[in-house]
Amino acid sequence: MSIVYEPLSGREFPRFSGIKTFFRLPHVPVEADYDVGIVGLPFDGGLSYRPGARFAPSRVRDISALGRVFHYGRMEGFTKKVKAADIGDCPTVPIDMEMTYQKIQKFYGHVLGLGKKLITVGGDHSTTLPILREMRKRYGKPLTFIHFDAHLDTYPPAWEKDYHHGSFARHAVEEGLVDPKRYHMFGIRGPLTGADDLAFVKKHGVTVHTVDAIRDGSLKSFVSSLPDFGTDPTYISYDIDCLDPVYAPGTGTPVPGGLTTYETQQILRGLKVHNLVGADIVEISPPYDQSDLTALAGMDAMFEFLSIYAANQK
Amino acid sequence: MSIVYEPLSGREFPRFSGIKTFFRLPHVPVEADYDVGIVGLPFDGGLSYRPGARFAPSRVRDISALGRVFHYGRMEGFTKKVKAADIGDCPTVPIDMEMTYQKIQKFYGHVLGLGKKLITVGGDHSTTLPILREMRKRYGKPLTFIHFDAHLDTYPPAWEKDYHHGSFARHAVEEGLVDPKRYHMFGIRGPLTGADDLAFVKKHGVTVHTVDAIRDGSLKSFVSSLPDFGTDPTYISYDIDCLDPVYAPGTGTPVPGGLTTYETQQILRGLKVHNLVGADIVEISPPYDQSDLTALAGMDAMFEFLSIYAANQK
Amino acid sequence: MSIVYEPLSGREFPRFSGIKTFFRLPHVPVEADYDVGIVGLPFDGGLSYRPGARFAPSRVRDISALGRVFHYGRMEGFTKKVKAADIGDCPTVPIDMEMTYQKIQKFYGHVLGLGKKLITVGGDHSTTLPILREMRKRYGKPLTFIHFDAHLDTYPPAWEKDYHHGSFARHAVEEGLVDPKRYHMFGIRGPLTGADDLAFVKKHGVTVHTVDAIRDGSLKSFVSSLPDFGTDPTYISYDIDCLDPVYAPGTGTPVPGGLTTYETQQILRGLKVHNLVGADIVEISPPYDQSDLTALAGMDAMFEFLSIYAANQK
Amino acid sequence: MSIVYEPLSGREFPRFSGIKTFFRLPHVPVEADYDVGIVGLPFDGGLSYRPGARFAPSRVRDISALGRVFHYGRMEGFTKKVKAADIGDCPTVPIDMEMTYQKIQKFYGHVLGLGKKLITVGGDHSTTLPILREMRKRYGKPLTFIHFDAHLDTYPPAWEKDYHHGSFARHAVEEGLVDPKRYHMFGIRGPLTGADDLAFVKKHGVTVHTVDAIRDGSLKSFVSSLPDFGTDPTYISYDIDCLDPVYAPGTGTPVPGGLTTYETQQILRGLKVHNLVGADIVEISPPYDQSDLTALAGMDAMFEFLSIYAANQK
Amino acid sequence: MSIVYEPLSGREFPRFSGIKTFFRLPHVPVEADYDVGIVGLPFDGGLSYRPGARFAPSRVRDISALGRVFHYGRMEGFTKKVKAADIGDCPTVPIDMEMTYQKIQKFYGHVLGLGKKLITVGGDHSTTLPILREMRKRYGKPLTFIHFDAHLDTYPPAWEKDYHHGSFARHAVEEGLVDPKRYHMFGIRGPLTGADDLAFVKKHGVTVHTVDAIRDGSLKSFVSSLPDFGTDPTYISYDIDCLDPVYAPGTGTPVPGGLTTYETQQILRGLKVHNLVGADIVEISPPYDQSDLTALAGMDAMFEFLSIYAANQK
Amino acid sequence: MSIVYEPLSGREFPRFSGIKTFFRLPHVPVEADYDVGIVGLPFDGGLSYRPGARFAPSRVRDISALGRVFHYGRMEGFTKKVKAADIGDCPTVPIDMEMTYQKIQKFYGHVLGLGKKLITVGGDHSTTLPILREMRKRYGKPLTFIHFDAHLDTYPPAWEKDYHHGSFARHAVEEGLVDPKRYHMFGIRGPLTGADDLAFVKKHGVTVHTVDAIRDGSLKSFVSSLPDFGTDPTYISYDIDCLDPVYAPGTGTPVPGGLTTYETQQILRGLKVHNLVGADIVEISPPYDQSDLTALAGMDAMFEFLSIYAANQK
Repeated sequence: MSIVYEPLSGREFPRFSGIKTFFRLPHVPVEADYDVGIVGLPFDGGLSYRPGARFAPSRVRDISALGRVFHYGRMEGFTKKVKAADIGDCPTVPIDMEMTYQKIQKFYGHVLGLGKKLITVGGDHSTTLPILREMRKRYGKPLTFIHFDAHLDTYPPAWEKDYHHGSFARHAVEEGLVDPKRYHMFGIRGPLTGADDLAFVKKHGVTVHTVDAIRDGSLKSFVSSLPDFGTDPTYISYDIDCLDPVYAPGTGTPVPGGLTTYETQQILRGLKVHNLVGADIVEISPPYDQSDLTALAGMDAMFEFLSIYAANQK
Repeated sequence: MSIVYEPLSGREFPRFSGIKTFFRLPHVPVEADYDVGIVGLPFDGGLSYRPGARFAPSRVRDISALGRVFHYGRMEGFTKKVKAADIGDCPTVPIDMEMTYQKIQKFYGHVLGLGKKLITVGGDHSTTLPILREMRKRYGKPLTFIHFDAHLDTYPPAWEKDYHHGSFARHAVEEGLVDPKRYHMFGIRGPLTGADDLAFVKKHGVTVHTVDAIRDGSLKSFVSSLPDFGTDPTYISYDIDCLDPVYAPGTGTPVPGGLTTYETQQILRGLKVHNLVGADIVEISPPYDQSDLTALAGMDAMFEFLSIYAANQK
Repeated sequence: MSIVYEPLSGREFPRFSGIKTFFRLPHVPVEADYDVGIVGLPFDGGLSYRPGARFAPSRVRDISALGRVFHYGRMEGFTKKVKAADIGDCPTVPIDMEMTYQKIQKFYGHVLGLGKKLITVGGDHSTTLPILREMRKRYGKPLTFIHFDAHLDTYPPAWEKDYHHGSFARHAVEEGLVDPKRYHMFGIRGPLTGADDLAFVKKHGVTVHTVDAIRDGSLKSFVSSLPDFGTDPTYISYDIDCLDPVYAPGTGTPVPGGLTTYETQQILRGLKVHNLVGADIVEISPPYDQSDLTALAGMDAMFEFLSIYAANQK
Repeated sequence: MSIVYEPLSGREFPRFSGIKTFFRLPHVPVEADYDVGIVGLPFDGGLSYRPGARFAPSRVRDISALGRVFHYGRMEGFTKKVKAADIGDCPTVPIDMEMTYQKIQKFYGHVLGLGKKLITVGGDHSTTLPILREMRKRYGKPLTFIHFDAHLDTYPPAWEKDYHHGSFARHAVEEGLVDPKRYHMFGIRGPLTGADDLAFVKKHGVTVHTVDAIRDGSLKSFVSSLPDFGTDPTYISYDIDCLDPVYAPGTGTPVPGGLTTYETQQILRGLKVHNLVGADIVEISPPYDQSDLTALAGMDAMFEFLSIYAANQK
Repeated sequence: MSIVYEPLSGREFPRFSGIKTFFRLPHVPVEADYDVGIVGLPFDGGLSYRPGARFAPSRVRDISALGRVFHYGRMEGFTKKVKAADIGDCPTVPIDMEMTYQKIQKFYGHVLGLGKKLITVGGDHSTTLPILREMRKRYGKPLTFIHFDAHLDTYPPAWEKDYHHGSFARHAVEEGLVDPKRYHMFGIRGPLTGADDLAFVKKHGVTVHTVDAIRDGSLKSFVSSLPDFGTDPTYISYDIDCLDPVYAPGTGTPVPGGLTTYETQQILRGLKVHNLVGADIVEISPPYDQSDLTALAGMDAMFEFLSIYAANQK
Repeated sequence: MSIVYEPLSGREFPRFSGIKTFFRLPHVPVEADYDVGIVGLPFDGGLSYRPGARFAPSRVRDISALGRVFHYGRMEGFTKKVKAADIGDCPTVPIDMEMTYQKIQKFYGHVLGLGKKLITVGGDHSTTLPILREMRKRYGKPLTFIHFDAHLDTYPPAWEKDYHHGSFARHAVEEGLVDPKRYHMFGIRGPLTGADDLAFVKKHGVTVHTVDAIRDGSLKSFVSSLPDFGTDPTYISYDIDCLDPVYAPGTGTPVPGGLTTYETQQILRGLKVHNLVGADIVEISPPYDQSDLTALAGMDAMFEFLSIYAANQK
């Protein structure tokens, strides 16, 4: 029996009813014939302050029952162009990062090998690294990388640990997984621990769009000033703390003075990305969330990713 | 003994004290000599997702103890021009929409028959329809209609039910209660269920001011671009979800990327409305509210309505 | 491929991971070969005070990830004796009780026709009535009825509506769905609206175990004093407000002075029930819950039901 | 027009609707013909730790919409015997205890002079002292005093202030307002600051029923062991922190190991009090409450007081 | 042993660990050799609505574990220029404002006498007055005064009390503590109680920057339009309710339509202040906070103050 | 200068003021001359479900400002017999259990080498193992072990990890750190994963006091039935989830049907322990706590431990 890649209709089955999957899309085996798989990655063993991101996939599944498919700006529903599905959660070991990395690489290696595009709902930001490793393997070259965050995530080891949620970007550059020349950060702001924190991005030529830069003129002019990101395989990593703490109270290391959801919507809508191959939404911490505001912002980013996937489909 | 239409003074009686009425105004019988009656409409039987709006009148009464009467922009206190009062709650049947519609029409028909202007604190948006029916009867022609919302509320039946909180606007147009040519929506944004959702407003010529449109230039220029709404009887329906979920976490169907309270304040202050006859504030859901933020936003809209009533009073 | 009727192992897949089903049991079609189906009934259109029970199935699925199958008192795991599964949610119309009753009767009629035993996670208590109607049809005679509640639920019409969450028990007796002579209530306490409230149970000979009666001597002696309920088809309806508000803060009409979860555990464990055919857990209101205490108490009752089903299986 | 001293019916007007008064009773002027006036006393300027009790009258009014009048144990509804009403809030000065004491004494002196019985919803426990002063004046002799509390409230000055929420009982004894020989405390438990804390009650012969004493045998035997309190004017002061913090999370100085609401219900029901003239419920702090559990416990005590008033009415 | 005036490193000791001091700076005696002392002032006895500010120092200490020292805009870490430390809490009498004023003046008099600069974490706004009195004494002339607030705080007596959290600014001007010609308010907005509320600032020539004025053009142009505040001793008082309630839900008297944290950051960064001698952050009410958003905004202001102190250090 | 081992007086400095240490006791270096050191162990990297225990030391420090020293049952204040102090937090690596174990062993080895007694505020239960290792070394023989818990904590590896918060007890027995013959568990209850879960305790002869056993007769008779635990070095590990979820909502793996704080108080007070050398309070998860109920219960256990230390001091 063929699978219908449409969300369960809210006009037929109330949105509060039913077993919760991402966007009320069908839950399918990883081997099914979908184009874009949405996968949960419930791991928060890389965090430095507030925990809880392990519950993000579950809460995002729940609140994404509010999701609708038709994009008002693009005037198109993503389900017309791509078959999207919930493919369940990637296995993890909640108390061991190294073992979790192995499980992630095995899972993503398998799914990417099936030719699938992916959206990941993390988890803390340390989990992006093993995903990028498999992406790099799959596509044979460093990825174009678009990174929303309050933090640079290029920080040095902490407590003598080299891998943590604040160092994934450094490793991704050092391991050649992403191309620093095609690496744009959005939402970065201070304070920092020290001037040294900026050395890495400067040295590698990563483009940093601070909140100040984004707000220097009108939002429209900022968005239109962004380059065309071309047709190389592109990955978008959306750390929810790019948003102001008010828009994302449920996160581990909030930083005042951040972006609004409207601003990230406008940037995501304006991105000239033509070959999205992977995306993630990380650092949502449900125990610190309020009225599901943060999970809802995560759902919103997921919707923009799905719409980009659809737009990429000619 | 004549009634004093002033709020209980916070400098005499602490704002946390006393029996709670809207804005600390006197609670009076519907037959009293007030100009503008503020009425609670505690019904949430038309909702599709989160319930709770039945508690909105109670929480808005409570938090509106913080209210003050003097408008900094208009440099005038509304009590100088209009006699406003809390006239209690309209009867409802919590588990039956049809019976509630009857009770609403009976109650509003009676009060409107007394020549009163009204501000309603709902309830879900399905309750606006029976109010408009009585307004239409009272004024003998379709109303000029100003509608703040995230959603169009012109949607088709859901679960085979034609009347629900997302279809009141369609019925209001179809029943000739409001004039689509003098119908302006503010705060609308996607996503939608499908392209069809836009057909109704296009067909009837309703003016839709999306968030994108409102933010296309400066707020001041947007506000000044709005037409004069003339002297026909005008109704303002303020669905709290026009606001971003961050400004109104306590609502039933939140949509990211919405307006700020400052933006709706500026629009309400700039509206060239000369004959306000009714207004409502709906879809506040206290169980999902945080620190009464949403109820406070509701109180703020109520204050602007009272100030418009005062300004209309030459 | 045959279905494995065991919960997903928490020692293999962390309990916070995966798509949420009741007790981490497999989600199966209603026609599958399970013995006991656990079904969500997300409807709260019959409530008189706090809403929110529509979200109960979703939250109980979520928290029941903490469930374990082996009963310490019975020294047996229910999965050894019965095949239990999550069969999804019964369709509802959130804003129409009558239509919902029809959908419930259609759904339960179908599933009961397949020879299944059921556990329902409601919803408000008004939904027990249509379930009992189908149970009565299926088993051809009035059921033995065990009812945990703070309230008698035999109340008269409210707001001129005869069917609501406080009148299901009256209708169940009047319609001959349950046998008042084999009808025991547990947890009842005052205050009442008036002396009349007791007339119905007295007239029909329903046995009422008030909290005072349960605590008159030791719990053990109370439990052992209960009769053998025999082999007639038996239904247990567990209104979470039988518990003290402290144990079930997330409910619609809390009443101080209620039972503890330990007391209801002991009663459920001691019930001499030999032919359980249906059970429900109702009136959990997640928006008013704290740290999922109420949903957890609901999961606990569900576990006792599953263990009774297993014990009934000789 | 004569006032009907019955609560607004929940079967006619939903309990979530209407302007909130204590127990949905009529709000009447202090000079009306009621027997028992329920008065709010919103002051928390005497607290040593968590504030918030100023909001207690407002929240108790709100949640007491759930109240019902018929006592299951006494088999009688209080409205058959006494005319009870909400007489509003006593004036206070939120930032000055001395001025507040003056306002309290003026207000209570006036109402007592009208021959009324009273139930006060505080406020912190420091407000009981000025009430007792007026009671003492009114009745011409020290009162029989029944005091539920975790703390002795006979403590020495704090921060050089002699009057605070932990010293009211010492002053009441020292000023001769209550008779220490007819003074019973319930719910007292440690820890204390030092052995000295016990000196006062020992010296004056106040009877202290600790939690340990109450639980030494069965609750029934404890209750029946209590003396007949006779026909002298009796006052009951119910500090919500007599309850375990779990039953009253919303309070200023919680102490683990306290009573359950069931235990205080049983004690209140068993008290051989024949001439109740005043009662209060204090130390409810809504900002720290959860799902209104504490306010609900306050409402429950209020109901028992009303029922005692009714029972005293031969 | 000399004190190291650096925060405990988050890369060595996790930020959630350790005894909490402001910004993880060393806790030192008031006589130590620091330049800027951060002091807690836990008093909320001057409030008119929601209490709780007494817990602000404790929560700000806690959340400021997230603090980092390097300012992205100024490209400098404050610890390079100033020695900052936590000097503990100023003694208070929670239930007596006058006695607290005396204790504040004694404490601040002493510390200022040691030649220290200060940052105070209040407390309600009434506590700024006694601080200013000592500042005035210390510096021998009225201070330049920069005041962030939703309210003018020049209000008349309330409940016959002349000193409260809404009148400190009036007293500060009337007592000659601050120079009204060098007094700028930011964030003011309506509603007001009446037109009279504006009389005081008009009469004395205080400069009021309303939210409307701040948003009249671009933020950058507003900031650059501000005057140079010169080298006279300058004090900044930051009432957290200058922020919109969404950015500061945990406050006592929230007013919709306020500033964002980004706006206050930009203003604080752009202030041409050359001789900061004192600053405070007041009106944070933790019991009403959500996910520590308000405390975090307080920490953010504290960081900007520390950075101004560093910048003033040539 | 000699240290005063008394809590900061609440009658001099309000309990909400000051830098927070355990029980307001002095914060001293590990080498100071105290008898009992209270140490924070902020690590939650061994948890299987809800995280957050890393914040327990911080919240317990905060709420323990409510602590008082005089034990009403023992009629003695612990500070008369033992010098107790806050010795800060043990270093941890939040994202690596093995490294944390090393840091714990180093820290505890050092402190135990100084001859100190300890109370640890964890952290998840996995941290008890390394403490016991150092205790075993220090005392040269297996410890008498008293263990409060809902769970046996003798479970097999999870996710192929042998060390986690549910296996510490198994390792402690297997490594010979505790003597299973002098090992008593309190509060254990089902459900379990399977019958195998009981094999380990049966095999080793650990004494398991289930909730059912504790409640089989009166609490007093249960407590008096407990053996004398003798003079061998004794360790008490208090997992807060021994309590019912209602008494400890803030924990990682709650189990309904647990003990009350009163019951654990009575057991702790009745324990015939004569040589307490270490104790811990673990599994408090502040992000899931409500009104600090769980942290308060933790403080309460800490107070009983301090009182046992004092009682052991002849």
